[in-house]
Amino acid sequence: MVGYSDDKAAIQARLRRVEGQVRGLERMIDEDAYCIDVLTQIAAATRALQGVALQLLDDHLGHCVSAAIVGGDEAAEKVREATAAIRRLVRS
Amino acid sequence: MVGYSDDKAAIQARLRRVEGQVRGLERMIDEDAYCIDVLTQIAAATRALQGVALQLLDDHLGHCVSAAIVGGDEAAEKVREATAAIRRLVRS
Amino acid sequence: MVGYSDDKAAIQARLRRVEGQVRGLERMIDEDAYCIDVLTQIAAATRALQGVALQLLDDHLGHCVSAAIVGGDEAAEKVREATAAIRRLVRS
Amino acid sequence: MVGYSDDKAAIQARLRRVEGQVRGLERMIDEDAYCIDVLTQIAAATRALQGVALQLLDDHLGHCVSAAIVGGDEAAEKVREATAAIRRLVRS
Repeated sequence: MVGYSDDKAAIQARLRRVEGQVRGLERMIDEDAYCIDVLTQIAAATRALQGVALQLLDDHLGHCVSAAIVGGDEAAEKVREATAAIRRLVRS
Repeated sequence: MVGYSDDKAAIQARLRRVEGQVRGLERMIDEDAYCIDVLTQIAAATRALQGVALQLLDDHLGHCVSAAIVGGDEAAEKVREATAAIRRLVRS
Repeated sequence: MVGYSDDKAAIQARLRRVEGQVRGLERMIDEDAYCIDVLTQIAAATRALQGVALQLLDDHLGHCVSAAIVGGDEAAEKVREATAAIRRLVRS
Repeated sequence: MVGYSDDKAAIQARLRRVEGQVRGLERMIDEDAYCIDVLTQIAAATRALQGVALQLLDDHLGHCVSAAIVGGDEAAEKVREATAAIRRLVRS
């Protein structure tokens, strides 16, 4: 069991959409699309990826971290690990 | 009691440092500093602010959210609230 | 002619790598990978996408915007358009 | 002469507002404000700082970089320098 078990189909659908956006970017480059239009699509793909990350994080806090806190075991370590992951997201 | 009670002095010290960085920026503009040098200092101040946010978030998850999870009360709401705050940080 | 003409192959290679990263993410979800590991890979894919954006932006400033400035025509508009694109990147 | 000469008063006003926001943050910590409310204000201050950066960047591209491009001298270096500054903003 992982934190995102209940959202697996939704997350896969979002990732496939991002994959489609990236393939769309390759097509734009192929067809010499205007730089600014490519940049706009990159910003959209980036936001979509961050959206997936935020959904996973919500699931992770609500399940994995919550379970560790209730269990008392490794709670502090789980919180630290989550904060480190958030740091990578904020900084990416 | 707030989540950051134990780190209050450290957080205040970090915020005062950010305040000093912003005043340094005002001085740079006053003295007609080169645009790129100002931008470098803005990036540094932004990272410092995010550092404070990440410390607060770590404290919040480790105390407020943990307490809600252990108490069983409002746990789901606390996690949703934390995720919304993380979303604002990632998107800012 | 677009600003990234000389870098087309390099940009396509980078985008195909991002596409591979996103497919890797779908595989991780399929195989119930640990949330934090998925988040780490999302941060990596996000940075890779931003890397493509920064290369395109460098090309755009060095070619399209530079040409507009030399031509005198639409220079101010091109700069405003570039700043708006940068704003979307910084905020995404 | 710097790129932001015409906007100096506006930039100073924005920086003073950010300074006020940071002092407001110190006050919130002093008064044990709720973590999430502090995080919301940090996100606002971060966005305000990025707003100053984007205004400076617009001025820099429209004046310093444009002048280098027209002059033909150091144009490529100025564009590279601007891209590096944008990279620091996107990554911060």
